[in-house]
Amino acid sequence: MSAHLATLLVACQDRKGLVASLAQVLYGHGANILDSDQHTDPIAGMFFQRLRFDLSSLTTDRVSIEHGIREVGERFAMTWKLSYGTQVPRVALFASKQEHCLYDLLIRHRAAELPCEVAMVISNHTEAEPISRHFGVPFHHLPVTAETKDHQEAAAIELCELGKIDLIVLARYMQILSPAFVARFPSRIINIHHSFLPAFVGANPYRQAYEKGVKLIGATSHYVTAELDQGPIIEQATIRCSHRDSVDDLVRKGRDLEKRVLANAVRWHLDDRVLVYAGKTVVFD
Amino acid sequence: MSAHLATLLVACQDRKGLVASLAQVLYGHGANILDSDQHTDPIAGMFFQRLRFDLSSLTTDRVSIEHGIREVGERFAMTWKLSYGTQVPRVALFASKQEHCLYDLLIRHRAAELPCEVAMVISNHTEAEPISRHFGVPFHHLPVTAETKDHQEAAAIELCELGKIDLIVLARYMQILSPAFVARFPSRIINIHHSFLPAFVGANPYRQAYEKGVKLIGATSHYVTAELDQGPIIEQATIRCSHRDSVDDLVRKGRDLEKRVLANAVRWHLDDRVLVYAGKTVVFD
Amino acid sequence: MSAHLATLLVACQDRKGLVASLAQVLYGHGANILDSDQHTDPIAGMFFQRLRFDLSSLTTDRVSIEHGIREVGERFAMTWKLSYGTQVPRVALFASKQEHCLYDLLIRHRAAELPCEVAMVISNHTEAEPISRHFGVPFHHLPVTAETKDHQEAAAIELCELGKIDLIVLARYMQILSPAFVARFPSRIINIHHSFLPAFVGANPYRQAYEKGVKLIGATSHYVTAELDQGPIIEQATIRCSHRDSVDDLVRKGRDLEKRVLANAVRWHLDDRVLVYAGKTVVFD
Amino acid sequence: MSAHLATLLVACQDRKGLVASLAQVLYGHGANILDSDQHTDPIAGMFFQRLRFDLSSLTTDRVSIEHGIREVGERFAMTWKLSYGTQVPRVALFASKQEHCLYDLLIRHRAAELPCEVAMVISNHTEAEPISRHFGVPFHHLPVTAETKDHQEAAAIELCELGKIDLIVLARYMQILSPAFVARFPSRIINIHHSFLPAFVGANPYRQAYEKGVKLIGATSHYVTAELDQGPIIEQATIRCSHRDSVDDLVRKGRDLEKRVLANAVRWHLDDRVLVYAGKTVVFD
Repeated sequence: MSAHLATLLVACQDRKGLVASLAQVLYGHGANILDSDQHTDPIAGMFFQRLRFDLSSLTTDRVSIEHGIREVGERFAMTWKLSYGTQVPRVALFASKQEHCLYDLLIRHRAAELPCEVAMVISNHTEAEPISRHFGVPFHHLPVTAETKDHQEAAAIELCELGKIDLIVLARYMQILSPAFVARFPSRIINIHHSFLPAFVGANPYRQAYEKGVKLIGATSHYVTAELDQGPIIEQATIRCSHRDSVDDLVRKGRDLEKRVLANAVRWHLDDRVLVYAGKTVVFD
Repeated sequence: MSAHLATLLVACQDRKGLVASLAQVLYGHGANILDSDQHTDPIAGMFFQRLRFDLSSLTTDRVSIEHGIREVGERFAMTWKLSYGTQVPRVALFASKQEHCLYDLLIRHRAAELPCEVAMVISNHTEAEPISRHFGVPFHHLPVTAETKDHQEAAAIELCELGKIDLIVLARYMQILSPAFVARFPSRIINIHHSFLPAFVGANPYRQAYEKGVKLIGATSHYVTAELDQGPIIEQATIRCSHRDSVDDLVRKGRDLEKRVLANAVRWHLDDRVLVYAGKTVVFD
Repeated sequence: MSAHLATLLVACQDRKGLVASLAQVLYGHGANILDSDQHTDPIAGMFFQRLRFDLSSLTTDRVSIEHGIREVGERFAMTWKLSYGTQVPRVALFASKQEHCLYDLLIRHRAAELPCEVAMVISNHTEAEPISRHFGVPFHHLPVTAETKDHQEAAAIELCELGKIDLIVLARYMQILSPAFVARFPSRIINIHHSFLPAFVGANPYRQAYEKGVKLIGATSHYVTAELDQGPIIEQATIRCSHRDSVDDLVRKGRDLEKRVLANAVRWHLDDRVLVYAGKTVVFD
Repeated sequence: MSAHLATLLVACQDRKGLVASLAQVLYGHGANILDSDQHTDPIAGMFFQRLRFDLSSLTTDRVSIEHGIREVGERFAMTWKLSYGTQVPRVALFASKQEHCLYDLLIRHRAAELPCEVAMVISNHTEAEPISRHFGVPFHHLPVTAETKDHQEAAAIELCELGKIDLIVLARYMQILSPAFVARFPSRIINIHHSFLPAFVGANPYRQAYEKGVKLIGATSHYVTAELDQGPIIEQATIRCSHRDSVDDLVRKGRDLEKRVLANAVRWHLDDRVLVYAGKTVVFD
C-alpha cells in the first residue's frame, strides 16, 4: 500500500445511514475514497465495509480523521480497523521440511506481490535455513519433540512478540499449534490445508483423496482456531485429477494449489481485505 | 429485483466527494443502501458506482429522491441510470437453427434466474417455434435473404419497438446485423461469440481452433457494435480440449460454454451490473 | 457409436502380454483399432483397457471375434464387455420437481450428444410430464409416500425391466432408492449429488456449504450403491463462490454444475468409458 | 523415469495392424507394457502411440528389442523415438531479468517433478546468477546487443552443444532467437508466451489484454519455430480477471499461469509425451 493511502475495515449490525456516515466523515476531512466495497448479510443482520482512501488531500490531519471515525464507530457500535500505508505489516513464516510454500511466499515477496516485511522464518527443521539466507531473511531453528513442545512454542511466541509480528503464516508447518498459542494470535495465523475442506480433515489428505477416488483435489487456506482444520476459510481452489494420478501425482498437483491458495490468502489479509464473523470470512477481493 | 428495491448506476469523471454525495442523498431521503460497489479507473480518471437500495423506508417519495439524484448528477456531470424493481425489463431473443442457447435462456427464465419478461422470440428459421410455444413465448418468423435483409431488419425493429423491448439477445442468431440496426439499440444487444475473443474472429471459430491446435476453447459474450465481434466484452470462459477432440467435440464442449457465458452476461445486464466505457465494460458481479 | 464400430472394455489382474494378446486377437480377425486406452494400477495390481475398433474390415465375423476374445478373456481371467454400435442403450430418466437436469439431458440427447434412446421418464410428481411430451418421451407418474414406497419401487422396476432399460439416471430424483432396488441395477444407476463429495453428504448441501463458508461449491455424479452418497465417483466439478452468494445463489450456480457433471457421467457411461473397481472408477475420457 | 523403464513414441500413416505389431514386438522380447496411449487423426490419416514398458523382465536384450522395433518401424514407415530411463535429458534454461519461471523450474526440479538434469542457466543479464548458484547450477552470462547478437547466439549454441543439451527452455528469455538458432534445435526449444495465443501475439500482451478489456488472461507454452509466437502449442491456461485489475495485476496473475503452463510443457516433453505434426501437438497427458 502506498504511503499516502489508508484502509478502513468496518463491521457492525446493519442499520440505515452507515454508508453515508462513513463516506461523510472521510469526505469531511478531505480524504478521497478510491475503493469502496460493502457487504450486508441479511440473515445475520450484519454490515461490512472496506474503504481505501487517499490521505494526501486531507484538509485536517490523521488525529482528526481518526477521531471522526471513532465517533461514527461508537454511534453505530462498529468494530473497525484503520491501517496506514506507512505501517508495513511484519510476517513470520513457519515451515518444516517441505519448501514449496516457503519458496513461493519469499519469491512473491521479492516480486512485490506481498505488502509486508518478512521478518523471520521459524522451523523445527534446518532445511529452510539456506533458503532463508538466500532471501536475506533471519532464520530460527526451533526443533520440537512431544516433550519440548511447550518450551518450543514459548520460544516461538517470544520471537514473534519481540519481532512485533502481525501475521504468522504456516507454510506447510507440520506441527499442530496448541490452543494457548492460537489464542495468542486470533485471526492472525493463516494455515494451508492440502484438501478441499471440509473434505479430508486431518492427516494424509492426498492419500484419503486417492482412496476415495475423487476427480478433483483441492487446497484450503484458513485462519487457525483451536479446532483442527475448522477455522474460517479464506480461499480454496481445486484441480482435476483422474485414475491415472498416483498419490505422488496428487501431491505434485496439490503443491501448485497450495502455493496459490496460501499466497492469495496472505495477500488479501495483508491488504486488509478479510473480515471474520460467524466462523467464516468476508473477502473483499 | 424485488418491487421495493432500486438500483442506481453512475459514471463520471473521478472527483473527491462522489461517494459521500451519493450516499448522503440516498440517506437523506431515508433509503437504505443494501449493496454498494465502486470502481475508479486511475488511468482514464473515471469513477463508476452501483448502488442498490431499499425504498420501503423512504421518508420522502420517488419524485423527491429522483430530484435529489438529478441534482447530484448535474453537479458532478454524471451519467446515471435509476431502475426500479417494479419495472421488469422486456427481452427479445433472436435465434436461428441452433437451439441450445435459446432453450437455456428460457429454462433459466422459468427458474427465475433472469429478472425480465421474455416478450418474444424472433427467428429467421422455424425450428424455434415449438420451443417458444412450449415456454409460452410469442414467436415471430422473419426469414431473410440477401435481397430481403433490409425489410427483415425493418420488421424486426418494428416488433422490438412495438414490444417495448429493452434488450435484444442474439442466442446464436446467425445473421450479421446492419450498422443501422445496431445503432438503434446501443449497448442493448448482447451477442455470444463461440471463441475466446480476440482470437478467432469471424466464421467457424471451432474449426479455426482445431486447425491451430489450441489446448483451450472459449466463448465470449459482448455488446454488439458496428464492427463485427469487436464490441465491449461482458463475459468469457474457456474449457480444456486436446488432440482427441474433433471439431464436433469442440462444438459440443463449446455449447456448454456459450450457454453459461451468454446467461451470465444477460443476467448481469438485467441486474444493472454492467457499464460500458472506452470499448470495454465494468461488471459489478 | 457408428453401426460398424465396437468397444471392448477389459479388467483383470495385471500380467505381461495382455496388451499384445488383445491387440493380436482383434488384428487377427481384421478389426482396425481406432482408439486404445489403458491403465495399470500398480498398487492394486490391476489392468484396465478400452479398445474401440472398426468391424467393417473384419476378415471373419462377429461370432468368430467374440469367440477369440472369450478365449483370451479366459486365459487371463478377464472381466470384459463388448458393445456394438448397433446396440443403442436404453435409458430411463427419474425426476422429481426440479427440471434443470431433466431438460438438460433431453436437449443434449436431441443434439446427439448422448448415444442412447431415452425410453421413458419416471417421476413421483407431474411437473415433468409436459417436458417429456415436448421431447416425445413416454412419461410415467409414480407418486410415492412412506407407505407406498415398496409398491412404487416395484412399479418402477417393472417399467424398467419391461422397457429393457440399460441405465437409470437420477436427474435430481429426490427419493432414496432402497438397497433392493439398487441391487437390481449394479453400476447401472447414476446419481447427481449437489456437493463436492465427500463434503456435505446428505440433505441440503448448499445450505451446509453456505454455513461453512466455503469458497467453492461442487457437484458429484456417482454410481448408486446401498450406502447413501458413497458410490463410485464418475465426475466432479466446482465453481467459485463468495460471501456475496446467498443460499439461492449457490443453488443457481450449482444447477450449472449439476447439469454438466451429470451429462458428462452419462455420456461416458454410454460410451463405455467407465470401469468400476475398489469403490472408485477408471474413466477413459 | 526409473532406470529399468523405456518409452517408445511412434508416428506414422494409419494402417491396420499397427497396435498389434508394436505390442507383439515388445511382448516377444519379454517387455511388460505399463502404459499405452494412442491417437488416430482420421482427417490427417495419422497414427500416434506412446508405449511405456518395463525392461527388467526382458528375455532378450536392448540391442535385440531395438532391432525388432526398427523392423516394425520400417515395415510401417514409422517415425519413432525410444528413450531409456537411464538416459537423463540435459536441459539449458535461458532467462533474462524476470526470475519467476526460472525459480519455478529449479524448485520443481529439486522436488523431482522434472526428470532431467538442469545443466546450465544462460542469461543476457546477471540477475539469474545468484539464483543459479543457490541451486548449484552453472551460470553463463551472455550479454547481447543488436550488434553482438550473432556472436552471442553462436556462444549459446556452443555452450549447448558442448553441454550435450537435449532441451532449451526459454524461461521468460526476452530475446527473439534467429531462424538459424531455431533450426539447430527443432522441436527442442520450449517458450512461454504470456497470452492465450493466438490472441495478443508479440510485445506487451498484458497491456493488449488490458486495453481490450478481456475477462480472462492466458499463457501459452509452445515449441519455438522461425515464425514468432506461431510454434506448435503444448499447453495453455487462463485465469479470470476483471475491470479491477490493473496491468500490474494482470502481470501478477499471469506469472502464476506462466509458471504452471511452462512447467507442464517441460515435464511432458521430458516424459516423452509430446508429438508434433501439422503445426500442432499430440500430448499424451
